[in-house]
Amino acid sequence: MKNIVIYDSTLRDGAQSQGISFTVSDKIKIVELLDDFGVDYIEAGNPGSNPKDMEFFDIIKRKSLKNSKLIAFGSTRRANTPVEKDANVSSLLLAETEYVAVFGKSWDFHVSEILRTTLDENLNMIYDTINYLKNRGKKVVFDAEHFYDGFVENPDYALKTLQVAYDAGADSICLCDTKGGMFPTEIYDITKKVVDKFDCEIGIHAHNDNGMAVANSIMAVEAGAIQVQGTINGYGERCGNANLCTILPNLQFKKGIKCVEDDKMRELTVLSRRVSEIANAAPDERAPYVGRNAFAHKAGMHSDAVCKNTRSYEIIDPELVGNERVLLLSEVAGRSALIGIVNEVDPTIDRDSDKTKEILDKLKEMESKGYKYEGAEGSLKLLILKTLGLYKPSFRLIEFKVIVNEPSVDDVNSSALIKIEVDGQEEITAAEGDGPVNALDKAVRKALERFYPEVKEMKLTDYKVRVLDSNSATAAKVRVIIESSDGNEVWSTIGVSTDIIDASWIALVDSIEYKLNKK
Amino acid sequence: MKNIVIYDSTLRDGAQSQGISFTVSDKIKIVELLDDFGVDYIEAGNPGSNPKDMEFFDIIKRKSLKNSKLIAFGSTRRANTPVEKDANVSSLLLAETEYVAVFGKSWDFHVSEILRTTLDENLNMIYDTINYLKNRGKKVVFDAEHFYDGFVENPDYALKTLQVAYDAGADSICLCDTKGGMFPTEIYDITKKVVDKFDCEIGIHAHNDNGMAVANSIMAVEAGAIQVQGTINGYGERCGNANLCTILPNLQFKKGIKCVEDDKMRELTVLSRRVSEIANAAPDERAPYVGRNAFAHKAGMHSDAVCKNTRSYEIIDPELVGNERVLLLSEVAGRSALIGIVNEVDPTIDRDSDKTKEILDKLKEMESKGYKYEGAEGSLKLLILKTLGLYKPSFRLIEFKVIVNEPSVDDVNSSALIKIEVDGQEEITAAEGDGPVNALDKAVRKALERFYPEVKEMKLTDYKVRVLDSNSATAAKVRVIIESSDGNEVWSTIGVSTDIIDASWIALVDSIEYKLNKK
Repeated sequence: MKNIVIYDSTLRDGAQSQGISFTVSDKIKIVELLDDFGVDYIEAGNPGSNPKDMEFFDIIKRKSLKNSKLIAFGSTRRANTPVEKDANVSSLLLAETEYVAVFGKSWDFHVSEILRTTLDENLNMIYDTINYLKNRGKKVVFDAEHFYDGFVENPDYALKTLQVAYDAGADSICLCDTKGGMFPTEIYDITKKVVDKFDCEIGIHAHNDNGMAVANSIMAVEAGAIQVQGTINGYGERCGNANLCTILPNLQFKKGIKCVEDDKMRELTVLSRRVSEIANAAPDERAPYVGRNAFAHKAGMHSDAVCKNTRSYEIIDPELVGNERVLLLSEVAGRSALIGIVNEVDPTIDRDSDKTKEILDKLKEMESKGYKYEGAEGSLKLLILKTLGLYKPSFRLIEFKVIVNEPSVDDVNSSALIKIEVDGQEEITAAEGDGPVNALDKAVRKALERFYPEVKEMKLTDYKVRVLDSNSATAAKVRVIIESSDGNEVWSTIGVSTDIIDASWIALVDSIEYKLNKK
Repeated sequence: MKNIVIYDSTLRDGAQSQGISFTVSDKIKIVELLDDFGVDYIEAGNPGSNPKDMEFFDIIKRKSLKNSKLIAFGSTRRANTPVEKDANVSSLLLAETEYVAVFGKSWDFHVSEILRTTLDENLNMIYDTINYLKNRGKKVVFDAEHFYDGFVENPDYALKTLQVAYDAGADSICLCDTKGGMFPTEIYDITKKVVDKFDCEIGIHAHNDNGMAVANSIMAVEAGAIQVQGTINGYGERCGNANLCTILPNLQFKKGIKCVEDDKMRELTVLSRRVSEIANAAPDERAPYVGRNAFAHKAGMHSDAVCKNTRSYEIIDPELVGNERVLLLSEVAGRSALIGIVNEVDPTIDRDSDKTKEILDKLKEMESKGYKYEGAEGSLKLLILKTLGLYKPSFRLIEFKVIVNEPSVDDVNSSALIKIEVDGQEEITAAEGDGPVNALDKAVRKALERFYPEVKEMKLTDYKVRVLDSNSATAAKVRVIIESSDGNEVWSTIGVSTDIIDASWIALVDSIEYKLNKK
């Protein structure tokens, strides 16, 4: 039985993070990940305030989801404006979602000082908006913004805002600690009062400005809240929202409150990392449960203890969330994780063989140079093939020369000349492109087509750059990750260099070699 | 009056973080920072397990501290070894600190399964060690390792370990959630029982494996604990220790429990950043109170509200912790945030003027092309100057040509030729570099030095790349952000293009023009 409702706001409140900006196609990828994981609600955007979000809803409405309900988010009508004339409210309808979330003010201070309207008009705004949406067949979540701060200063008014939402037919009421300054006992006490008073689904929406968003969400659940709002990796403005990647295992494995299927929970670490890749945000290595260090044991005594009994220093088995134990001082580090991939290449190699050690050493050497094979499994497989002596390069680069001109000539600013050799035969060719990497990419495929017609089947589908050690400014190392597809399979490859062209070239070669080595 | 005792373990438990390794001189610098800030106890190392720590104590014992007491940390004696023959315990004495901290096991499972000794012998180990140290004139803190887990499984035994520590003369008893898996209500209930039973100073030592270390520390204080252990920035193994940079403002400003002098609290942000520099760990931008984004307001509505009244979206005044408010611009940016920056350029322009609208329109146009001025305030100022007709370009590019060769020639793979014009005079020059952008950067400065010697004062300090719409793969748009400094000021500039060289060039030109337009 399912006891809790998970409400993800990565695409709405999470998108308010500084430095995060999702494209429409990023958003669609994240919806697919969340739906597959089994989140109940996906608050996917604010169609009224953001034209990109409207475009997203137009595309997503044509897709069907397996597990999740999409939610369009917007505010109550403006003061002194009839609800049917409010552009924001209308755009909520245009999103054509079954569910909508409407936020309204529950703190009298915000009504008077920020909205600058009367307390009564604010109540009307809440009532009218929800009532209007209910009459149009929507399921409505009411987000009571600043509810807790409001309750502390004027409990009667804060509760009145909930009452009108309830009377207007809200299907659920979510209590927001919008400033993120509440303490756990306050959250518990206030939530309890609301749960005792209203018989609809009560939710919690916590922010992390005092570092207690996770604890506050848990306390609200202990007080009877059923809906938990948060974001993947805790993205959100200022200090972020409550982190679902922490809350879900806390509830499921420590409190016995089921959030998603156990086998889906095993994908939590991957989900966290995929979303951070899409957001182009460095993953938090210290993140509870899903961080790279969450189960890393450094001190000799701790490692020893974990080898005797993992319960000694681990709050759960890392496999439950798809993470892994890392024994930092020990030679066995990482073998378990690696062996699975090694066995795809050669099923006869076991964990303790010399070959595994050799691969592990090579991997460590590459990682010290800035390589990271998580998210670049194509390159990892090639590295394994190379270390095992099973790799046969399909071509040899003799030289390339990339030229970038400013001003551009006939709208083309980059061109690449390339000379390669395949089985003693040379080929020289050239191509123009949108930037130097694009020119180089086109040139190398053109040169190879004569020898390997199958390179026509593949295309690059994603290209990401991250600057490592960015303090070295334009001489810093960059890590390029390329994703390619041939329709049947998608693979990722990596290159690292102080020169972005060189890093891109390394990743491009791996991408092509992966395809050609599949045969 | 001072109501709480702050116990910092950055140099001991914090040093267990993966990726952190303090040299002796790093440790001395951090002691000086903590002492100056006004921490009560500094747990500075484990002389028995780490020769570097012994060297550190030899140096630090000759320095006198203003506010803090240094603590040497070590374990109880080994099983079946007389305490006076235990090497660990002896090395605690060699540190020559007035205070020592001794950790012992409070969880029967750990005694039987990890130490593999009897429950009685463990009690003797605790008693003997503390008694021995007390007889040698030490003040003793007893760290009850795994106390909470122990209490849950065997409360009688867990309490017995505290009782023998108390009987042996421990000056304070610290309750540890060593695995970091406890929930706030458990922490409260269990701590309360201990506080009611023992009349010495009770402490809390929380880990963050379930994301609740800060909340758990607060709950323990609510239950009567007086000593709060933690680390700067929450460093520590696995998911880290309780973060003092979050706990201290929570207690001092939200609970009214004084931790340090108010004017010292204004140095908290600097303390956090200095320690992260010494640890060579990237600062957490989302960290409560001290993070760069902790008081950053992005969405137009939020910026607007903060301009009306900062209380609307801030839990404290950022100045109380020495941090600052940042009003970010974004696609949904409103006029309020913008007008502050416009007024730095021209104080006579107001919110509703045509000029403000013109700037806003230009901003939106640029944002639709992929520009994003949050974190690129240098380019924003130039954009404002340009729109107001106040911008005078310092030079004109006639052409550049960047060439990348593979294989490289004499270890140089990139070179740039550049031709510019300043007031009718032309200059042509060239430079080589680590990659094409570095070569171009060097070439343009070289060309400009003759006309503007002050470009020598500036240097690029950071370089970031983000691929927008990465599905277009190598033809995708990239956004480059460059940070520059001339020793007095730091500024950031942005460039967007499908070509990374071009995007970098745009940001480089803005960076130089910003510097030259300052005059």
